Amino acid sequence: MIVVLDATATPPDVTDVVTIIESGGGRASTSSGGGRTLVVATDAAGHVSTDLRTLAAVRDVVAISSSHKLVSREHQPVRSTVRVGTVAIGPDTVTLVAGPCAVESPDQMLDCALIAKAAGATLLRGGAYKPRSSPYAFQGLGESGLKVLASVGQETRLPVVTEIVDPRDLDVVCAHADMLQVGARNMQNFELLKAIGRTGMPVLLKRGMSATVEEWLLAAEYVAMSGNLDIVLCERGIRTFERSTRNTLDISAVPVIQQLSHLPVIVDPSHSGGRRDLVLPLTRAAIAAGADGVIVDVHTDPEAALCDGGQALTREDMGELRRSISELARVGGRDLAA
Amino acid sequence: MIVVLDATATPPDVTDVVTIIESGGGRASTSSGGGRTLVVATDAAGHVSTDLRTLAAVRDVVAISSSHKLVSREHQPVRSTVRVGTVAIGPDTVTLVAGPCAVESPDQMLDCALIAKAAGATLLRGGAYKPRSSPYAFQGLGESGLKVLASVGQETRLPVVTEIVDPRDLDVVCAHADMLQVGARNMQNFELLKAIGRTGMPVLLKRGMSATVEEWLLAAEYVAMSGNLDIVLCERGIRTFERSTRNTLDISAVPVIQQLSHLPVIVDPSHSGGRRDLVLPLTRAAIAAGADGVIVDVHTDPEAALCDGGQALTREDMGELRRSISELARVGGRDLAA
Amino acid sequence: MIVVLDATATPPDVTDVVTIIESGGGRASTSSGGGRTLVVATDAAGHVSTDLRTLAAVRDVVAISSSHKLVSREHQPVRSTVRVGTVAIGPDTVTLVAGPCAVESPDQMLDCALIAKAAGATLLRGGAYKPRSSPYAFQGLGESGLKVLASVGQETRLPVVTEIVDPRDLDVVCAHADMLQVGARNMQNFELLKAIGRTGMPVLLKRGMSATVEEWLLAAEYVAMSGNLDIVLCERGIRTFERSTRNTLDISAVPVIQQLSHLPVIVDPSHSGGRRDLVLPLTRAAIAAGADGVIVDVHTDPEAALCDGGQALTREDMGELRRSISELARVGGRDLAA
Amino acid sequence: MIVVLDATATPPDVTDVVTIIESGGGRASTSSGGGRTLVVATDAAGHVSTDLRTLAAVRDVVAISSSHKLVSREHQPVRSTVRVGTVAIGPDTVTLVAGPCAVESPDQMLDCALIAKAAGATLLRGGAYKPRSSPYAFQGLGESGLKVLASVGQETRLPVVTEIVDPRDLDVVCAHADMLQVGARNMQNFELLKAIGRTGMPVLLKRGMSATVEEWLLAAEYVAMSGNLDIVLCERGIRTFERSTRNTLDISAVPVIQQLSHLPVIVDPSHSGGRRDLVLPLTRAAIAAGADGVIVDVHTDPEAALCDGGQALTREDMGELRRSISELARVGGRDLAA
Repeated sequence: MIVVLDATATPPDVTDVVTIIESGGGRASTSSGGGRTLVVATDAAGHVSTDLRTLAAVRDVVAISSSHKLVSREHQPVRSTVRVGTVAIGPDTVTLVAGPCAVESPDQMLDCALIAKAAGATLLRGGAYKPRSSPYAFQGLGESGLKVLASVGQETRLPVVTEIVDPRDLDVVCAHADMLQVGARNMQNFELLKAIGRTGMPVLLKRGMSATVEEWLLAAEYVAMSGNLDIVLCERGIRTFERSTRNTLDISAVPVIQQLSHLPVIVDPSHSGGRRDLVLPLTRAAIAAGADGVIVDVHTDPEAALCDGGQALTREDMGELRRSISELARVGGRDLAA
Repeated sequence: MIVVLDATATPPDVTDVVTIIESGGGRASTSSGGGRTLVVATDAAGHVSTDLRTLAAVRDVVAISSSHKLVSREHQPVRSTVRVGTVAIGPDTVTLVAGPCAVESPDQMLDCALIAKAAGATLLRGGAYKPRSSPYAFQGLGESGLKVLASVGQETRLPVVTEIVDPRDLDVVCAHADMLQVGARNMQNFELLKAIGRTGMPVLLKRGMSATVEEWLLAAEYVAMSGNLDIVLCERGIRTFERSTRNTLDISAVPVIQQLSHLPVIVDPSHSGGRRDLVLPLTRAAIAAGADGVIVDVHTDPEAALCDGGQALTREDMGELRRSISELARVGGRDLAA
Repeated sequence: MIVVLDATATPPDVTDVVTIIESGGGRASTSSGGGRTLVVATDAAGHVSTDLRTLAAVRDVVAISSSHKLVSREHQPVRSTVRVGTVAIGPDTVTLVAGPCAVESPDQMLDCALIAKAAGATLLRGGAYKPRSSPYAFQGLGESGLKVLASVGQETRLPVVTEIVDPRDLDVVCAHADMLQVGARNMQNFELLKAIGRTGMPVLLKRGMSATVEEWLLAAEYVAMSGNLDIVLCERGIRTFERSTRNTLDISAVPVIQQLSHLPVIVDPSHSGGRRDLVLPLTRAAIAAGADGVIVDVHTDPEAALCDGGQALTREDMGELRRSISELARVGGRDLAA
Repeated sequence: MIVVLDATATPPDVTDVVTIIESGGGRASTSSGGGRTLVVATDAAGHVSTDLRTLAAVRDVVAISSSHKLVSREHQPVRSTVRVGTVAIGPDTVTLVAGPCAVESPDQMLDCALIAKAAGATLLRGGAYKPRSSPYAFQGLGESGLKVLASVGQETRLPVVTEIVDPRDLDVVCAHADMLQVGARNMQNFELLKAIGRTGMPVLLKRGMSATVEEWLLAAEYVAMSGNLDIVLCERGIRTFERSTRNTLDISAVPVIQQLSHLPVIVDPSHSGGRRDLVLPLTRAAIAAGADGVIVDVHTDPEAALCDGGQALTREDMGELRRSISELARVGGRDLAA
């Protein structure tokens, strides 16, 4: 049972809720963040929820028998818009997130950011902690990379999104980022999800490479039940037997998620295909299928990139991408977010 | 080694080719159909190809060391347009193929055909032989279904495409159909592919449900080397672990195929997702990704359909589909084929 | 509804059954083979089955509402033993089937057969029709290969099993083989399955490379409902993302099948892994998991094999295989079939 | 470049190594644990390795150009035996690890431990931190569960293995456990792997549910290059399309891993199939294929289990399991580890 409190709830209101739960024999744990307070009760007696609903500070009481309740459209029928700074990601816009796979240097980062911005990107990506299959591959610049990213973000006036891979890094990452990215390999790193949920920061949650839609939404629910509903889902391809692409973009996941959940969903055409020549057609497919945005890799010199250069777009590619997104957004009655 | 003869080659020309191959110690088999003659030689000595190229009637000699040569863009750089009657499927148009999954009765077939035509379909589909996982499921009306299909096709002036599942049915199916469909389960039924190749009829070759792009093109090569290059490929979803859709539409296959092969490629959004509510967004994604057309299931009364009713579009849905296809085709500078 | 008649049923008995079905408004089709007669009725009224059960010649009436009935243990609780000539495949024995992937020449075939027999094989395999992904790969010797196989089988007194890929080849294959093999690519070639079912010949039915256990049993049901229950299932690996083996042997399928179906199930460790060094450990796993036998590739000179040489066992390997099978069969209280 | 120092290396020896690397322009980081010291240098000049090899304290210098070097058989040709307390896991024995999926209470834990020990288990498993797909499922008892586990381990004289899911829990888990388990969902939680590697504790590394063998070995390499080679790999099934089992046990991975790596590999037949009735046949297959042990779920009352009861073995099942393991271990010339 999850008790969703009103945004105006006070600490005494929370105490009231906990008291009712505990007097009914249940256990309660409280989370707050993102302007919301939730009380999760795992074994309260059945009649307690009725009592709780009578409290003025209680907005909703969600049964825990069904899965992904907080992120479901049953819980919230209207599709959500998540805001990162002044940037909106949601049903009315098509948001372009762009930047290099990894922060390599201040110059490289700034050049990429300028290319991204010129092409209409409103959010800047850049990885400082890179989870790589091999321990011998470039692992990112760490904290110094975060500082470069934040500084370039401020200079170009683009909010920044960056991956977090360890709950022990939360303070330093939150100090420099506007949105936290959870990568495919950490989609079921539940302790990380819980810790992120408690920060109240906007989250970009990538789909695990063999995660079902159901499991993906349950991962989002881990963030949500820790007090944070500012979650954007990102489809980045699943693992199949096909070898001509690095992963198989599951384009159907876009409408499927939008039917099940109120959360925005964007597509990563760069990591899905793993090939520069597929980024444009996959972006077009994503927008046409209704995705709320795309996130793409950009690099000034893909051949020299320290990470995934084979899929990064150049300045020229980005111009073409912009035209495609604009055209297709317009067909769907939407705008490229500005 | 495959010797591709000129369209104007005469029987004596073919005899010359065979003589050269056999005098070099090789074996030759000849196929013709679709306005082309091919001589396939499996073990000729290396110097023979040079001799053959000197003949005026020889258009090309393809080494058999590399895979899918005849269907490759190396063999034919310009993307092909396949014609079924007067209907074109190729890079300049977006072709809509529609009809019921199975022919059930003359009335049902005619009603579906009228809905399809009203929505801009230029090719009519309808199955008379239905390969079903269970032997206890409806297996199609067989020859009587073919007759219904052909008659409705004539009445509505729509060429018809229908599935063939057994080489022994070739004569009867060819007598009633304008295009032969090979279903996913038969993509590697090589004897069927060879037999179809020899008819010279246009072929719609669906991707096997766990076939790689490479294997799919090799299946097309079986048809091609039997003398027939009028092949349209159809992506219909692959089998993965995901359970919210029947199959996972591999949208990346569209640009991947178009890069590797000159053959047109269309998408089946009905069988990919297996859900009516996904047909429209998947169609939009397919057109935006560059597919040369789509093939959809239509039914007047989906609840009562004998096969796959859950994914069939109704008259209302088809109107919306038409608008979407037109809009997106126009964005790509193409027309809904008329 | 399937009406299973007694082995002693006469034509008038069959007529009685059909009359009852048709007078109830149903349609009936009759199959016989393998010493059994079945009447399949697809739309009879509900009360008809009760009437049929009163007939002395009717052994069972199976509802068609549930899947794979004839091959299920509900239909026949005791696990079956299938006989090919004098060779038994079933729960009391461990049967070794061995031979070359493809028949290449009389000498090669005889040498392989002698190696197989010396290692305890009681059934000889050899392919004359080879379904190959590429049309440019060796396709088998066809009818002349069948003759070689049959002749070597007689000389070594080993019944032979060979693949059939086209219903038009049934007469010629049945004339030379003791057991018909259906390959993975044809597991859902339903017209082939039906045609084979009607011959009454023992069948070795390989699992399709992305077939579920459920679909595999339904494919067997196609053979069964055409009048033939002499079916041996063969697990040969499924397609997954893993690349260190050609396919992923689904060892769990052995106990799963044995619980759901009375049919014997054997394992193909050669095609599962596609690597010679894995054949022995996979064979050991198969026997220990309870498989009723294994089928392995043998070659006198694997380097020179025309098909799948990389997985073929040599004379030395076969000696080791024999010892392993004997030891493990004994642990399970079984014998290497003689 | 990884410099592997001798077990007898002293701090001055390490300093010598680092000095040589840095004077060549490289960067060095040092790790020790598990009786070994490693120096990892990511960008040293090419000639440095030759210099290093002249030092007496240097056992090996491994180039980082190739993947999974430290865990490879090229690096260490003889297969390793990992010791957890007095318990050996390696090529000479078959080790049985057993216990409940989750620690639920002192009584439940003790009863399960006694069942496990009576059946020949020498290592006790029990989860205190449970990574569950749903945030609403039982998440484990946490630290109090660890205390119960440790206390029962001492009482029954069984070393204990338990899962760790967060690097922040390392101190508390190491204080109570003899071996750390990394679950499938965390196989690519690289920060966790690095942190664990630095503890020098024995590690049980489960395969990710869609990880290739290559990626699994690279995950082990993350632990290894942090200074710890006491790693046991555990195959627990991969995700495929098959639905009759929870995962598909990739039995081929056992011999494949043993060929590529010197690390021991065990099998988890409980989580692979997710079904009690499959645990015994899959255990038999695992031992016959050469697995160095198995890890199984036990419960006194599976129906009441808080986690995965459907796959837990009872006291009776465990007796049968013991007999099977003993028989099959003996066939392979091994013993059930005592």
